[in-house]
Amino acid sequence: MNQAFRAGKTATKDESVIKKILDETGAMIYSIPMGQTPPETGAIIYKRIIEITDIPDPYHNIKQQNIRQALELYPELKVKIESSDDPLLTAIRLAVAGNVIDLGIDKEFDIVKDVEKILIQDFAVFDYDKFRSRLAASKNILYIGDNSGEGVFDKLLIEQLKLPVIYAVRDTPIINDITLNEAEQIGLDKIAELISSGSKAPGTILDKCSDEFLEVFNNADMIISKGQGNYESLSDVSRDIFFMLKAKCRVVARHLNVKVDDIIFKYNTGKI
Amino acid sequence: MNQAFRAGKTATKDESVIKKILDETGAMIYSIPMGQTPPETGAIIYKRIIEITDIPDPYHNIKQQNIRQALELYPELKVKIESSDDPLLTAIRLAVAGNVIDLGIDKEFDIVKDVEKILIQDFAVFDYDKFRSRLAASKNILYIGDNSGEGVFDKLLIEQLKLPVIYAVRDTPIINDITLNEAEQIGLDKIAELISSGSKAPGTILDKCSDEFLEVFNNADMIISKGQGNYESLSDVSRDIFFMLKAKCRVVARHLNVKVDDIIFKYNTGKI
Repeated sequence: MNQAFRAGKTATKDESVIKKILDETGAMIYSIPMGQTPPETGAIIYKRIIEITDIPDPYHNIKQQNIRQALELYPELKVKIESSDDPLLTAIRLAVAGNVIDLGIDKEFDIVKDVEKILIQDFAVFDYDKFRSRLAASKNILYIGDNSGEGVFDKLLIEQLKLPVIYAVRDTPIINDITLNEAEQIGLDKIAELISSGSKAPGTILDKCSDEFLEVFNNADMIISKGQGNYESLSDVSRDIFFMLKAKCRVVARHLNVKVDDIIFKYNTGKI
Repeated sequence: MNQAFRAGKTATKDESVIKKILDETGAMIYSIPMGQTPPETGAIIYKRIIEITDIPDPYHNIKQQNIRQALELYPELKVKIESSDDPLLTAIRLAVAGNVIDLGIDKEFDIVKDVEKILIQDFAVFDYDKFRSRLAASKNILYIGDNSGEGVFDKLLIEQLKLPVIYAVRDTPIINDITLNEAEQIGLDKIAELISSGSKAPGTILDKCSDEFLEVFNNADMIISKGQGNYESLSDVSRDIFFMLKAKCRVVARHLNVKVDDIIFKYNTGKI
């Protein structure tokens, strides 16, 4: 309901349209099974919001603003990484910091303050050693993006990975998630191969992903997954994945056995 | 939806019943007009929750726990008031502190910590001088209660008012609001005349109040109204009222031109 309310307010100032979005979202709860993940629910609700408002990308302006802010920071972050003792680790920290840019969940944020905070915050789960050894043994990487502005931070990390990267984006606009348009705007196409996951949900629901993506997903030497939406849809999949995210709600925090606002760098072996 | 979820979790551990409550609450949004106040909506939703769960007072245990905790504090708070430079002001501060005990809105609270914090917090609106002069000119007071545990703090203030007080409670259990049962348990009947407002909502919607209450409401020399629910339903009424509350949500904070979590002691002249 909060997501629907925020998307409605972002799409239109017409209160009667916002009320209609809330009415219809409320009425849809009945048809949502208890086991359904938030990304699955988000996809259904968001589709209806687009139909009601007739605006195909309600978060367009917000995404542009996030990307602009992040690109402004990019040069100094690049220097910060390259002058640090462990550039890879600093880039990972920044990639997690980028995940705070999520208007789908957080209402307000101060990008500079949040980045500085996360650069010194302890990880609640920190599988960095496993990441390094796995990286040394890999020839290619699948990197699954999350939010649009976060893509700028992903770029900084990809530049440190020194391996061919395939960067996966959502198929269509959903909340403030990154699609092909934003990825190209950020210049991710210059340093990675871009593919759509085929997902129209704010996550990576494998049942609904394209065959092309599944081919990459099943065969990549290494997978990096950003953010909560991807975690919620991939955490129980039998595939080894490195998850980078900030735990933004109690349900995800509980699943990870951490606190809300903790930052996570977790290796799931995928063994079930 | 949050309220319905919390009431559902309080009433039962059966997740399918909680889901049913959310389904039905969601479906009810359609029938709620945009101008309806939260107390009006609360009354409708809460009635349905009681029907679904067949539990007439889901918050009974929580109310008992709140009252027990507050009564344990009562003796030391009484000493604190009587040994302070301005006992009336200290009692008012404590009466506002009591308003933090609201599981209808806040999820978790630490009663001792919250009380200590509010005893030193600045009021965002502070009509104490008007209160003192009005008190000196009055012969009787209508005091409209809010939450159950808060009633213990109301008792401390009433003891300082040194005037005959009529203390109004909700007609039936609604969230954790005070009814006749809890008021008697706290001993408010020993220091005030208790009446039901006739309201089955978590507020005082005059259209739905009893004639007996309206008689008192229209003729009391002075009115004290506690909490958000009463503020939401009485703030635009043409009657002068002293409101004591903590602003717990953005809508009420905006209406008062204060910040969320600000504490308020506001005189509404009732002139429209």
